[in-house]
Amino acid sequence: MKKDIEQFIDKFKKFNLSKEDLDTVSSNVKIMEFKKGDDVIVDKNSCQGFIYVLKGNLRAYAISTTGKEITVFNLNSGDECILCANCMTDNLQLELNLQANKDTKILLLHSSYFSVLKDKYPSIASFVVELLSIRLASAIKVMTQALFTPITQRIIDFLKQNATNNQIQITHEILASHLGTAREVVSRILKDIEKENLIKLERGKIIILNL
Amino acid sequence: MKKDIEQFIDKFKKFNLSKEDLDTVSSNVKIMEFKKGDDVIVDKNSCQGFIYVLKGNLRAYAISTTGKEITVFNLNSGDECILCANCMTDNLQLELNLQANKDTKILLLHSSYFSVLKDKYPSIASFVVELLSIRLASAIKVMTQALFTPITQRIIDFLKQNATNNQIQITHEILASHLGTAREVVSRILKDIEKENLIKLERGKIIILNL
Repeated sequence: MKKDIEQFIDKFKKFNLSKEDLDTVSSNVKIMEFKKGDDVIVDKNSCQGFIYVLKGNLRAYAISTTGKEITVFNLNSGDECILCANCMTDNLQLELNLQANKDTKILLLHSSYFSVLKDKYPSIASFVVELLSIRLASAIKVMTQALFTPITQRIIDFLKQNATNNQIQITHEILASHLGTAREVVSRILKDIEKENLIKLERGKIIILNL
Repeated sequence: MKKDIEQFIDKFKKFNLSKEDLDTVSSNVKIMEFKKGDDVIVDKNSCQGFIYVLKGNLRAYAISTTGKEITVFNLNSGDECILCANCMTDNLQLELNLQANKDTKILLLHSSYFSVLKDKYPSIASFVVELLSIRLASAIKVMTQALFTPITQRIIDFLKQNATNNQIQITHEILASHLGTAREVVSRILKDIEKENLIKLERGKIIILNL
């Protein structure tokens, strides 16, 4: 745990914080662990603050009024995230949720501390601008892909991007959530791709033969 | 024109700029006018900087590799925009385009000036964070709506939101671009809605009877 915090503090050194502020950061970060499939922090009434992924993988997803989901971006080990942007603006509702794709360990600096630092250090404000720009670009890319790329191609792209050793452990349901479509659609298309001998479907697992 | 610049400078006073910096701003802003349908600034190799809409309306849209479009957000008179976020981050490609929905007059402060101010004044950096947060929330909202709301409902919502005196002057082609769908789809659905006596279709115009 001490090593995790040191890794995080190292990240913060680039912002040229005073020793006092660095000490405040290190004594107020919180380490949290989540199992694969867990929702990450569910208190909708409070800001989540600054998240640093120590290990694992989180997905940030939007959800529709009818409960359908789409992944907007992923956070891997070493990635940072500022969520719940309505902490920054009063009349904004950013409906993004976080879920662990794998067993995941994060470091959290509550927004009450992070906001103060952001206002005090221009270097941190610039960093937030950069992070938000990246998320905005990512959201727009996901949106145009989801709207304009045929679903079969999007499924193939997802399998290629997320396979390890030509295998991917995922249910059709979860694959559908990532892509903002229905499970039935995913199942039908996967079967079509299997018929062409490009993949092999097993229980909870997809094996890539030739994509 | 002098009045336009004064209006803009008034906006900047809230950031507590030095008199010298305010003078730099006012002597470097550029006023630009666009006709309805014009693309706004087309130099893809340069940052656009900070835009303030004096009058009219701009739409920011994303475009797919196949040339399909979807409106991500609109800017009305009094709205500010920071685009071309790749000015802020090196390895980011934010593919957003701007088009005039009406005859539009904007005030532009080139990013070479704006970036300097952003780095110098934490108040401006905070403002940029807020603006980007709003755009991110908007992009995510547009995305979830586009994916999860039936296209008929989205067309009805668009007509309601954009009608003046129960009329809206728009072609099916442009309506399709706003919503990220095909003209044929829009024409078919509009005809269906017309059959139910909810709207009346005229050349380049849609009249809302009872939506």
